[in-house]
Amino acid sequence: MGGLAVTAAAEPVWSVDPRTGKRREQVTAEAAPADVDAAVTAAAGAASALADLAARAAFLRTAAELLEGDAERVIATADAETALGTPRLTGELARTAHQLRSFADVVDDGAFLDVVIDHADPAAAPAPRPDLRRTKVPLGVAAVYAASNFPLAFSVPGGDTASALAAGCPVVVKAHPGHPATSELTGALLRRAAARAGLPQDVVRVVHGFDAGVALIRHPLVAAAGFTGSVRGGRALYDAAATRPRPIPFHGELGSLNPVLVTEAAAAERGQDIATGLAASFTLGAGQFCTKPGLVLVPEGTDGDRLLITLTDAAREVPPRVLLDSRIREAFLAGVRERLALPGVTAPVEPGEGEGLDVRAGFLSVPASLLAADSHAALTHECFGPVTVIARYGSPDEVEAVLAGLPGNLTATLHLSTAEREGGHGAAELVARVSALAGRVLVGGWPTGVAVTPAQHHGGPYPATTSPYTSVGTAAIERWLRPVAYQDTPAALLPPELRDDNPLGLARRVDGRREAGSGAAARLG
Amino acid sequence: MGGLAVTAAAEPVWSVDPRTGKRREQVTAEAAPADVDAAVTAAAGAASALADLAARAAFLRTAAELLEGDAERVIATADAETALGTPRLTGELARTAHQLRSFADVVDDGAFLDVVIDHADPAAAPAPRPDLRRTKVPLGVAAVYAASNFPLAFSVPGGDTASALAAGCPVVVKAHPGHPATSELTGALLRRAAARAGLPQDVVRVVHGFDAGVALIRHPLVAAAGFTGSVRGGRALYDAAATRPRPIPFHGELGSLNPVLVTEAAAAERGQDIATGLAASFTLGAGQFCTKPGLVLVPEGTDGDRLLITLTDAAREVPPRVLLDSRIREAFLAGVRERLALPGVTAPVEPGEGEGLDVRAGFLSVPASLLAADSHAALTHECFGPVTVIARYGSPDEVEAVLAGLPGNLTATLHLSTAEREGGHGAAELVARVSALAGRVLVGGWPTGVAVTPAQHHGGPYPATTSPYTSVGTAAIERWLRPVAYQDTPAALLPPELRDDNPLGLARRVDGRREAGSGAAARLG
Repeated sequence: MGGLAVTAAAEPVWSVDPRTGKRREQVTAEAAPADVDAAVTAAAGAASALADLAARAAFLRTAAELLEGDAERVIATADAETALGTPRLTGELARTAHQLRSFADVVDDGAFLDVVIDHADPAAAPAPRPDLRRTKVPLGVAAVYAASNFPLAFSVPGGDTASALAAGCPVVVKAHPGHPATSELTGALLRRAAARAGLPQDVVRVVHGFDAGVALIRHPLVAAAGFTGSVRGGRALYDAAATRPRPIPFHGELGSLNPVLVTEAAAAERGQDIATGLAASFTLGAGQFCTKPGLVLVPEGTDGDRLLITLTDAAREVPPRVLLDSRIREAFLAGVRERLALPGVTAPVEPGEGEGLDVRAGFLSVPASLLAADSHAALTHECFGPVTVIARYGSPDEVEAVLAGLPGNLTATLHLSTAEREGGHGAAELVARVSALAGRVLVGGWPTGVAVTPAQHHGGPYPATTSPYTSVGTAAIERWLRPVAYQDTPAALLPPELRDDNPLGLARRVDGRREAGSGAAARLG
Repeated sequence: MGGLAVTAAAEPVWSVDPRTGKRREQVTAEAAPADVDAAVTAAAGAASALADLAARAAFLRTAAELLEGDAERVIATADAETALGTPRLTGELARTAHQLRSFADVVDDGAFLDVVIDHADPAAAPAPRPDLRRTKVPLGVAAVYAASNFPLAFSVPGGDTASALAAGCPVVVKAHPGHPATSELTGALLRRAAARAGLPQDVVRVVHGFDAGVALIRHPLVAAAGFTGSVRGGRALYDAAATRPRPIPFHGELGSLNPVLVTEAAAAERGQDIATGLAASFTLGAGQFCTKPGLVLVPEGTDGDRLLITLTDAAREVPPRVLLDSRIREAFLAGVRERLALPGVTAPVEPGEGEGLDVRAGFLSVPASLLAADSHAALTHECFGPVTVIARYGSPDEVEAVLAGLPGNLTATLHLSTAEREGGHGAAELVARVSALAGRVLVGGWPTGVAVTPAQHHGGPYPATTSPYTSVGTAAIERWLRPVAYQDTPAALLPPELRDDNPLGLARRVDGRREAGSGAAARLG
């Protein structure tokens, strides 16, 4: 067989049913380098049309409508490819539509342009000042790498895409191989929405295939990237972005252990509630959330023992589930085996294979004093799937030793007693301590579930994310922009948001004073 | 000679007089790896003290006072090491003190914390929302790489240091070898200011030596870096930051051509003024500014010819100058030779060696049609020193071909006619076009001179900077922070800026509404 013939044959992209392991259909073919180039070039050509703020907002709202209008088909397709189930996917579709509309509101509001105007001051000290006005402009084509575990909310129509489009960046999505049919279907919906809003369809393109993903990150016209996935895959793409002739921002969400600390007083006061909540959280979505609590520090002694008894009962009640795909299933089983083989690790409820392709949820237990050892490093890294690790501690020093050895996290959770919640017993210091480890700190509750609000921060020290930005919530738009300042530029040549008469009605900072906006951006943009 | 003896001997660090090329004194010794580790560790240990906002602001103001109080000695030392001259260094010291005070004001104002509060909403669609409150926290120890050309404003007491300290990050400065005595002197002033403000002196440390700089960027406790210098040095450090086990943000300002476009109508209307202004700008500070206009597009024909005649006269009037150091001098002379050797390049006023260590200013001229060729790529890269390149264009297509081949820039400048300034003749499109190339766009005027204001943006597409942030102006503080969101956290455990009663009097965004602050941060922090 000749080399030419082999390279010319496009690899088929199959949709696979994780419940049976069988192929459902061939969706499309993997993108060759020329296809990736065509997709990026077409997207770049559509960029100027996105300068129209009103069209941008209308596009995002239309996309939400079309997604909701085709909800039945989208959810059925996603379920057939991911086994996530109709209730979960119904919620995810609603969240995805909400995200699209939230970013339309962000466009209307215009605060994301972060406009600052400093009028000329010939008398300024230490030197006269020219007229300076700053706004933000889109970076260019955004590459978005879709996630396995959210076929909608972190995939083709998800938060990375919505925030990049809101910023004015065309998007080329590298679809996840776990749900190619859903990717094609939702990609077509987005492109239809663009056309309805009077924009070129090529503001969104979808490509498939591992090699296509590598070609995408290296393409000269790609200006930034978003990624949700594993540490290994994310780091490889981060490295590719950083070693380009012109490096680009890489906003990757790579992995998180999401540690939980239950104080002795909390275990004494409400250990059973905590155990029940934990069982629900670490098995939610079959443990396939980036915010799954993967390490829980529980005190030694009677109260901790009781907590574990309740946890044991609750974990045994969790029904077996099918994971997203065979690769994730194998990684979960191997990860559990690797951890269980470590000295001192026990499995009060052993996670593992169930009937057919099902897996059973469970949890491991280990003395906290062992966690700091290099030999036990695996326990401080994420294991995707329905498993968590309970580390039993005997002293605050053991807690600190564990915390000091943790990599960066998306979240850190404290379960405190009533007295501690009121500020007693060093609780404020504990909050400050775990703030150093994570981008979101919870006091009570569970980290699974990430609200889409302006105050949200879904990011954290490496490897949780590769940049200090959020990928969830309206602030996610900041990832796709760069500032431009205009000096001594006549009004007729300024972008509208920088003109003294403020035709877009934006909130701005003028000569140091914050001025409220009138919210007219959408009407006039 | 044994290997051990050699490695044990610390390399001396000499202060050199660029006017004579002679050593002035041995200032200190290069930092060995253990010294770098000690400096970073000490700085990290001082981080918690910087959490006190009032002390942070007082420290920055005291640093400004001490710098001004010792101005005579600081300026004399800097002049002896850089030959920049007393008038320029007097201005630079005033600017540096102004920057320190500006960042104290930024700390007082508190807006840099970017506080957003979303109260819980159990009725929210598509899902109930917890209470979420976001603030920003310092990243950790900042490594600052000082610049050759600003011994104060972009060095030990400069903008990177001031903005990092304002953000709450201790700083380890890698001093520039061109002004080690100034670095030690100003480092001591900063440490004294810290002590007077009740902070540990180790919030600022200074290290010397190339190897120390490499060790610094790789140190596990270093959390971010700022750099001002060459593309080669900056890219090497960027690569080192990106290939760490835990990559860190690297905010480098690497190099910029700062293109200028003179339209035909502008050349006709006021070509002589433009020529005079250009001569002053490209030779200011002996052409040793990162914002020096290094490429000027001038129309062919009579008006352009007249502009060049005036420029020739003006350039011949510029007195010879000593450059910052022998390395920069050699690079300047080699850069001029390399460019002059290219086909089609002429030197109406030839830059080059003067008497002794002086160099003479001058400019080159080339048809714009040659610039797009690979063979002439050197002309589209910065040549540090008193030289600029005039590219003569015959058509808008030739202009576009040149712009399309340019790397990213800090600035882009348009010189327009009166009618074009009023919006005619495609001027708005020209403004939009050059906005894609740079972080600051000027209409009229010259890019040298960078005002320190909130609207300033000193950054641009790579290689101008390696991240979409500014290194000048109050927004520079954003480089050293990361967000943390607190979920359902009791008031007693929240940082003060996030409490409902707003004890710091900050401007905040609460449930979507912007609330003005009372500016009480400094009093209560």
